[in-house]
Amino acid sequence: MSMTRRAFLERLSAVGGTTLMLMGLEAFGMGIASAQTAPPPLQGGGAGKKVIILGAGVAGLTSAYELGKAGYDVTVIEARAFAGGRSQTARKGFQLTELGGETQTCNFDEGQYINHGPWRIPFHHRSTLHYIKEFGVEVELFNNDNDNSFMYFTKGSGPLANKPIRKREVAADMRGHTADIFAKLAQNGALDKQMDAADREQFLAYLSAEGYLKGDAHDYHGAEGRGWITKPGAGLVAGEEAPIYKLGDVLHSEAWKVLSSITDWDQQRTMFQPKGGMYMLPMGFVTKGGVGEKIVYSTVVEKIRQNAKGVEISVVNGEGKRSTVKGDYCICTIPLSVLKSIDTGFSAPFKAAMDGCAYAPVGKIGLQMKRRFWEEDHWIYGGHVYTDNSEIGSISLPSTNWLGKKGTLLGYYQFMGDAAKVSALSPADRAKFAVDFGQKVFPAYAESFETAFSVAWHRVQYNLGGWGMWSDEARARDYPVLLQPQGRVYLAGEHLSHIGGWQAGGIESAWMQIDALHKRASAAA
Amino acid sequence: MSMTRRAFLERLSAVGGTTLMLMGLEAFGMGIASAQTAPPPLQGGGAGKKVIILGAGVAGLTSAYELGKAGYDVTVIEARAFAGGRSQTARKGFQLTELGGETQTCNFDEGQYINHGPWRIPFHHRSTLHYIKEFGVEVELFNNDNDNSFMYFTKGSGPLANKPIRKREVAADMRGHTADIFAKLAQNGALDKQMDAADREQFLAYLSAEGYLKGDAHDYHGAEGRGWITKPGAGLVAGEEAPIYKLGDVLHSEAWKVLSSITDWDQQRTMFQPKGGMYMLPMGFVTKGGVGEKIVYSTVVEKIRQNAKGVEISVVNGEGKRSTVKGDYCICTIPLSVLKSIDTGFSAPFKAAMDGCAYAPVGKIGLQMKRRFWEEDHWIYGGHVYTDNSEIGSISLPSTNWLGKKGTLLGYYQFMGDAAKVSALSPADRAKFAVDFGQKVFPAYAESFETAFSVAWHRVQYNLGGWGMWSDEARARDYPVLLQPQGRVYLAGEHLSHIGGWQAGGIESAWMQIDALHKRASAAA
Repeated sequence: MSMTRRAFLERLSAVGGTTLMLMGLEAFGMGIASAQTAPPPLQGGGAGKKVIILGAGVAGLTSAYELGKAGYDVTVIEARAFAGGRSQTARKGFQLTELGGETQTCNFDEGQYINHGPWRIPFHHRSTLHYIKEFGVEVELFNNDNDNSFMYFTKGSGPLANKPIRKREVAADMRGHTADIFAKLAQNGALDKQMDAADREQFLAYLSAEGYLKGDAHDYHGAEGRGWITKPGAGLVAGEEAPIYKLGDVLHSEAWKVLSSITDWDQQRTMFQPKGGMYMLPMGFVTKGGVGEKIVYSTVVEKIRQNAKGVEISVVNGEGKRSTVKGDYCICTIPLSVLKSIDTGFSAPFKAAMDGCAYAPVGKIGLQMKRRFWEEDHWIYGGHVYTDNSEIGSISLPSTNWLGKKGTLLGYYQFMGDAAKVSALSPADRAKFAVDFGQKVFPAYAESFETAFSVAWHRVQYNLGGWGMWSDEARARDYPVLLQPQGRVYLAGEHLSHIGGWQAGGIESAWMQIDALHKRASAAA
Repeated sequence: MSMTRRAFLERLSAVGGTTLMLMGLEAFGMGIASAQTAPPPLQGGGAGKKVIILGAGVAGLTSAYELGKAGYDVTVIEARAFAGGRSQTARKGFQLTELGGETQTCNFDEGQYINHGPWRIPFHHRSTLHYIKEFGVEVELFNNDNDNSFMYFTKGSGPLANKPIRKREVAADMRGHTADIFAKLAQNGALDKQMDAADREQFLAYLSAEGYLKGDAHDYHGAEGRGWITKPGAGLVAGEEAPIYKLGDVLHSEAWKVLSSITDWDQQRTMFQPKGGMYMLPMGFVTKGGVGEKIVYSTVVEKIRQNAKGVEISVVNGEGKRSTVKGDYCICTIPLSVLKSIDTGFSAPFKAAMDGCAYAPVGKIGLQMKRRFWEEDHWIYGGHVYTDNSEIGSISLPSTNWLGKKGTLLGYYQFMGDAAKVSALSPADRAKFAVDFGQKVFPAYAESFETAFSVAWHRVQYNLGGWGMWSDEARARDYPVLLQPQGRVYLAGEHLSHIGGWQAGGIESAWMQIDALHKRASAAA
């Protein structure tokens, strides 16, 4: 998820008419925090039982690692030649061929990368951090809220529309002017009914602190944190604060839409990313966790069959050779968008429930820049440039290789109808589209651009979408059905959690299902 | 500076009666941002001229590095056995003996450290970042604003006083309730004079976004980012938001004092620290910058003399041997608190101007904890625990070695009268004082504590204070005098800038003075 759910919804309203709007604004049943902090204790061991795991994304890797530790004989079937599922990192040589598209080979310099799948780990995703710690994956802070970054709003009016303005300016002025007006209302008796005199005095002190109000009149004249025309340094000049914007100008710019009392739960300020790219997390499972030797790569599931004694998975490998894999149980982490086209033999009600989950079109593009102009020219270190141009969504600046020579930024991150539209462009045209917009925000954007790598997850084979989405109705009707095993097959993945679109959802879904599987296997033994 | 200047002043008001209050609340002439982004070009070269630099802190190191590059013959006289001035990092074996105090030998584990001097670099300190980049010092983000951290306010009343509460809860509830009240006033016509109908509608939309107000009534009922009782995960439970606090309870707690529309300029969210400790910055000058070979260590300045042809510095080395060092010019970065006791031969007006700068008592303590309970138990990764107990000031959690086993936190950071008071304790009693308070905030504090290292900068020889402070009167009257050379001696350091208490002040002051020195030397040549 690139932005708060609220911002996402606001953006949809702003755009209007996308398919998603038809589902209703409260249609996202995506949960937003992570409940589990540790894997379930699988007591008693699984010796003698074989579990076939479909998919080597984080849900499959988690299942294989934990069941393997408990003594189960596990085999992971993975369609791709590498593990990680969507937890990918595009680096030099990384290849992607979208359905119906040309093959992109990532041409970034050594050390440059883009996490075109999941890219950040909020502090409360205990499950993801559990494995980060377990495998000693080195993490660094991801700057998710940079007051010095720009915002670029295009649908408003007035002098602050269609130009880059700093988030700190908008925050200081919107809240400062508001506190100023409110303080005057309070002084004129508007709160006399709500509060006693002592509370009103404290409340005025709060408004003064919040809005940097000055004097007995409680006037807003700006705040040093808002910014400077002449910055203090050595010498005689003490510095000069930049003049404030008028309330009406900020209001009409619509840039206040990114402000909130507090960031949304899934958009906390304190986030992490693995050093070197998100693929370091699956690599932890594969190497340190020893799961690698249990993965059969480049092998696609064609058919799932089962009876009272076990499951049988028909697969085809990269050379077109067909075979079957047999086991006692199966954990299937294949996205529902893909699974629904596989011959599963599942019951009609179960298949109907699978149809209740829609998959989000999602697009991202990484742009390698020969110079970190956002740092050098604009003093912006990480964070996001938010815009109401929903085909761009946001430009995100890298939180790694600080002060380095080159940098790779995220040029767009769009969803739903916007992602569908942009994904129709060729990779070269997507890059041109992204660079043309970025040039409006940063004067050195186009001249610094070197090479791009883009993804449209809804066009990626074996994914067919960024993540699963549940309407409120489907969440109530279909989601509980899919949490139950279909015979000996257990579904797992971010789509089967309230943390949709995040790795923590996949991990915690796996934890729940291996716990259920283990209890059943132990009882049967 | 540990906190915003405002918070600092508020704290002083809260405490009352400190020496500083006598100077008046607006007495701090400390500037807060950094004007220069690159060193001055010293064109023409300084061949044949010798400059003696007193002090190997960042101002002295900067002077030596830049003048050396321009061809000057430079010698740096340093009283200590190591370079860096206050830019120190206490690691295993680091020793400190305060005046009149026992010798502390830092007993932290390998890899553990505390920056007991400067510890963070705001994104706008271009001068500091210039040398970070020049010497390839690896930096990482410093988490300066963690919404998930606790606040612990003791002077308020009601159910939220004297207990740890999360910043996100206070921010959401204070701003949410405020937006709720204001929205209702606006709906009842309170803004009819100030705004037209269209603006009022946009303003209500802003209040709704700011306060997460719900429905046509614009009621505040909480926000998901505020926190959860039951967090969403896998399974059927979608999660349950934590109940909100009453406005009166938050108001009476006084914890709202840490909220502001925007962080102060010197307390920006986006900050850096060198990996491994702040001493990596002076080490960059010493090793990569080649300044090390120009430093004469363990050598104390006793007397400064000059005539029309040059300067002569009388020094005594560690073995008590006296000698003189001669040069054409001198850059003196010795803190004024120390310099005023040296026989400088400066003019009476110049000496009087030196007396205009007061030095801040400042105390810090590092506490090594055998377990990162703030991360493991409370999910707090970096940031500060603010308190209105001014003898503690803040507890700060380390922004390094994420998810590691042990960690070293800052147990207090106090100023002025509070620092003077705590500094009278023995190192062991300071640690006990800090641990006793921390135990109120974190249940595992005392049982996790292993070893401490504390500093009281006003008791440190060769510093005698944390940083220079200027009253408005002294800034106008005395500061300009000290910017002028005293004969062939130029003063430099953070005290001679508007960025007092920050490394950037020292660097930019040095830039200004070497530029002046070079212009004069070039004209004379």
